[in-house]
Amino acid sequence: MIVARTIRELQEAKKELRGSIGFVPTMGALHQGHLSLIQQARKENDHLIVSVFVNPTQFLEGEDFDAYPRKEEADSRICELAGVDILFMPTIDQMYEKDELCIGAPAIRGYILEGEKRPGHFDGMLQIVMKLLNLSSATRAYFGKKDAQQLALIIQMVKNYFMQVQIIPCEIIRDEKGLALSSRNVYLTREEKQRALCLSRSLKRASKMVMAGELDVETIKKEMLAVLSETDRVEYVAIVDREFKALKRVEIGNTIILVAAWVGKPRLIDNIWI
Amino acid sequence: MIVARTIRELQEAKKELRGSIGFVPTMGALHQGHLSLIQQARKENDHLIVSVFVNPTQFLEGEDFDAYPRKEEADSRICELAGVDILFMPTIDQMYEKDELCIGAPAIRGYILEGEKRPGHFDGMLQIVMKLLNLSSATRAYFGKKDAQQLALIIQMVKNYFMQVQIIPCEIIRDEKGLALSSRNVYLTREEKQRALCLSRSLKRASKMVMAGELDVETIKKEMLAVLSETDRVEYVAIVDREFKALKRVEIGNTIILVAAWVGKPRLIDNIWI
Repeated sequence: MIVARTIRELQEAKKELRGSIGFVPTMGALHQGHLSLIQQARKENDHLIVSVFVNPTQFLEGEDFDAYPRKEEADSRICELAGVDILFMPTIDQMYEKDELCIGAPAIRGYILEGEKRPGHFDGMLQIVMKLLNLSSATRAYFGKKDAQQLALIIQMVKNYFMQVQIIPCEIIRDEKGLALSSRNVYLTREEKQRALCLSRSLKRASKMVMAGELDVETIKKEMLAVLSETDRVEYVAIVDREFKALKRVEIGNTIILVAAWVGKPRLIDNIWI
Repeated sequence: MIVARTIRELQEAKKELRGSIGFVPTMGALHQGHLSLIQQARKENDHLIVSVFVNPTQFLEGEDFDAYPRKEEADSRICELAGVDILFMPTIDQMYEKDELCIGAPAIRGYILEGEKRPGHFDGMLQIVMKLLNLSSATRAYFGKKDAQQLALIIQMVKNYFMQVQIIPCEIIRDEKGLALSSRNVYLTREEKQRALCLSRSLKRASKMVMAGELDVETIKKEMLAVLSETDRVEYVAIVDREFKALKRVEIGNTIILVAAWVGKPRLIDNIWI
């Protein structure tokens, strides 16, 4: 495995590659969720590039950029064992200059839910993803469905700018109790981890209601909020179509149910595709 | 020559191409200036794509989007004679959807001079150029130095987003009297065309002063403004370095002198690289 820390090193390493390139961009602190993306990318491509970069521009003022878990050595070992060809771990000054162009998320998908609660977050995320997708020359890039809105925006970016990469959405990975894996789960105490389970439980409850024929969004939301009362604060429960337009009734095969809530220190998100 | 009017037709036509691709994006109404770009691109690449698209998002409210000269048939003939392989002439709905991501020009280069006088113009220009560069899969893309600030922003875009195309700046083409060619010159009456010559004359005057050892920016500007008094209104005279930072003294090999002025209906721009 080649570890590239500069653009030049990455470009040098890429020169050797022939055939399809799989790419998994991450912010590091790799867990089983990342590993499942890496493994899928490994299977589906001739070559595999993973990036580890905690991107400052997608953190808002007061968010946990400084505290965000960094585990460079462990990440590097995981990538090596998973058969990664190139691990790209750039410094901030390799990725950004001072007065840059910027990308703005679209009005509808970009400024509701996560975009409303974290204004500017998606702009910063799109900025780095555009850079990384171009740098990697990826044939396919892998993103988890856990960040469903992020995924939708990246798919739209590729479409709007006619980028040639194929975006591959990957399933959410959960621990044995149902908690969606996240690098921010390390912030949870044992008691909070227990309470955090109500996020996935609320989604399971919603899914069961739909299977039992209940399609009314307000009814489902009310039930979910009851299940979510174990969290410290619910930020939103949303039932939208795959384009992120609000629904009044669940459309089977075209619905995403999303939840964001605070439990202890971290703000957790989870979702289910119906 | 294949004329592609949809994304699909363009992509079909591109499948046949092997080797390097030269690309010249235009807004049509092709003149000798465009032709010089097309000829250079033809020489330097295995294949040649030209686009003709009057991009609505780079015109401000009240500007001449509707009146902008459109000469599809003549353009098509010129391209065919010049050996273009693919002429891409899309409709607006092929290039844009309703609620899109957007690109913002950087603060310094994006909002001075042209960017100050035409706020939002560069954002719209960058939006379409990013789309077209990706769509064309160009090895090299050709832009005239006449739109010097546009050129600087496109070079920055390619750098900031690590795009793989090479941007080739091309010399300004002038008529026998010195008027920089522009599709908007068709708006000029014979009398206005005569007066419009003072733009290039003011630049020649500046160049002569520099050659004679005068490097003080204010002194040069004052002389230029005197020459420009034949225009209806001068919008700006600027002397900046190649990064578009204002200069107090001309730096030979690193300076651009720019002028924008109204003559009759059109707003004309011109510049010289010292």
